[in-house]
Amino acid sequence: MNRFQLVQQIKGKRSFLCVGLDTDITKIPKHLQSHANAIFEFNKSIIDATKDHCVAYKINTAFYEALGVKGWEAMEQTVDYIPKTHFTIADAKRGDIGNTSSQYAKAFFETLNFDSITVAPYMGEDSIRPFMEYENKFVIVLGLTSNKGAKDFELQKMGDEFLYEKVISKVAEWGTPENLMFVVGATQSSELSNIRKLVPDHFLLVPGVGFQGGSLKEVSEHGLNKDCGLLVNASRAIIYASEDESFADEAKIIAQQYQQEMNGYLNF
Amino acid sequence: MNRFQLVQQIKGKRSFLCVGLDTDITKIPKHLQSHANAIFEFNKSIIDATKDHCVAYKINTAFYEALGVKGWEAMEQTVDYIPKTHFTIADAKRGDIGNTSSQYAKAFFETLNFDSITVAPYMGEDSIRPFMEYENKFVIVLGLTSNKGAKDFELQKMGDEFLYEKVISKVAEWGTPENLMFVVGATQSSELSNIRKLVPDHFLLVPGVGFQGGSLKEVSEHGLNKDCGLLVNASRAIIYASEDESFADEAKIIAQQYQQEMNGYLNF
Repeated sequence: MNRFQLVQQIKGKRSFLCVGLDTDITKIPKHLQSHANAIFEFNKSIIDATKDHCVAYKINTAFYEALGVKGWEAMEQTVDYIPKTHFTIADAKRGDIGNTSSQYAKAFFETLNFDSITVAPYMGEDSIRPFMEYENKFVIVLGLTSNKGAKDFELQKMGDEFLYEKVISKVAEWGTPENLMFVVGATQSSELSNIRKLVPDHFLLVPGVGFQGGSLKEVSEHGLNKDCGLLVNASRAIIYASEDESFADEAKIIAQQYQQEMNGYLNF
Repeated sequence: MNRFQLVQQIKGKRSFLCVGLDTDITKIPKHLQSHANAIFEFNKSIIDATKDHCVAYKINTAFYEALGVKGWEAMEQTVDYIPKTHFTIADAKRGDIGNTSSQYAKAFFETLNFDSITVAPYMGEDSIRPFMEYENKFVIVLGLTSNKGAKDFELQKMGDEFLYEKVISKVAEWGTPENLMFVVGATQSSELSNIRKLVPDHFLLVPGVGFQGGSLKEVSEHGLNKDCGLLVNASRAIIYASEDESFADEAKIIAQQYQQEMNGYLNF
């Protein structure tokens, strides 16, 4: 999917919601846990229930890898099941020397047909470039994350800037808004206006709304640009909205609530 | 495996060689490429041929993930096949918010029975801590890597220190030499003496010897401590030593050459 198509999706649905499929076998409803393919069955129901209200799905690879081969199979089935109208994100936090990052790009852009992947910036340019070589695919580089540990390095000063500012400015030189996005945690929404000055046109993937305490209103105020420019992710608040057989209906209700709130913030 | 057992292995074999199984289906000998389980067959031969001369195996997860479910299966088979006497490293460069890192720890320390995993430090303490909660397992945090991109952030100054120095000092506060190691690229061997001052007792995993141009002699001079404290990785130089049916014999010869050179550098 390219940037234009993503923006069209957002305009059509008046939503910039991304549903995070951090599917944990121990947290899905009891009646599904014994199913031979429980993770995929759960995801299918969540996707069917939420697809009208969101524009993207984010698969957190850790939860699938924890189950080994079976989990990797469920990830493959899930990404295949997501409608082609929706933007797909492998939340994989990869990144290695060039020839290894090329293999990760192959894994997530060819073997698995994701539209994008999250990548950690620590190893620099040649760890990120291989992901930029694919047409209509995006690398989503960690800028400022939503966790406590952001203070350890990301929010430390490197010269006059915070490390995360240095990362965003530098990485932005290597890509364009057509192949590059950044992760910016919602719990740091006061920093969003600042980040918008550094990258006015790029999309930002914003996790941390909901369970992690970020405010959708603040994120929208500080982060929206003329093409929306935001994908706000909610995982646990949607997928674990209910523990019983009505889980998909409840997920739909919460996704719709997000969509309606987003509709009010969009400036087009 | 714990630190004492690793040191005993090194003393017994007079080797601190780690063989990197960056197994690329397009680079293994032609006669194996059509095998139904080519990656595992290749790895088995390499392990059988090199196990007497090395103390560790490092599996680069990217090369397995590029093949999808089949690759993940080959990784599982490979880690099961490696003798329990050898230290195993999932070179996975993971790291995410706490609850996600816990899932990665589960994936690589429980579902797959690796002794250690490489982790990127960008997201700070709660992204690394979950890997430290396992007994007799190690988290190997990226310090200074061997690629060109190291200059982009790792070798930039943060106050009076380079970022990589800050990372090593800070992360060393969270773990001990019993559960924490660092990645230090061999192409940066001039920095090794400096790193030894920061972490005199920790093991360092050193990639980049061989194809990436690092010198084993320099690494040993600057990096050895009283318990050896080094695992030097060679991948392509060993596993692709020959393209024909003698590949395993050639790999054995190269591994033995490394071991003999290492024997001369060890100070016990």
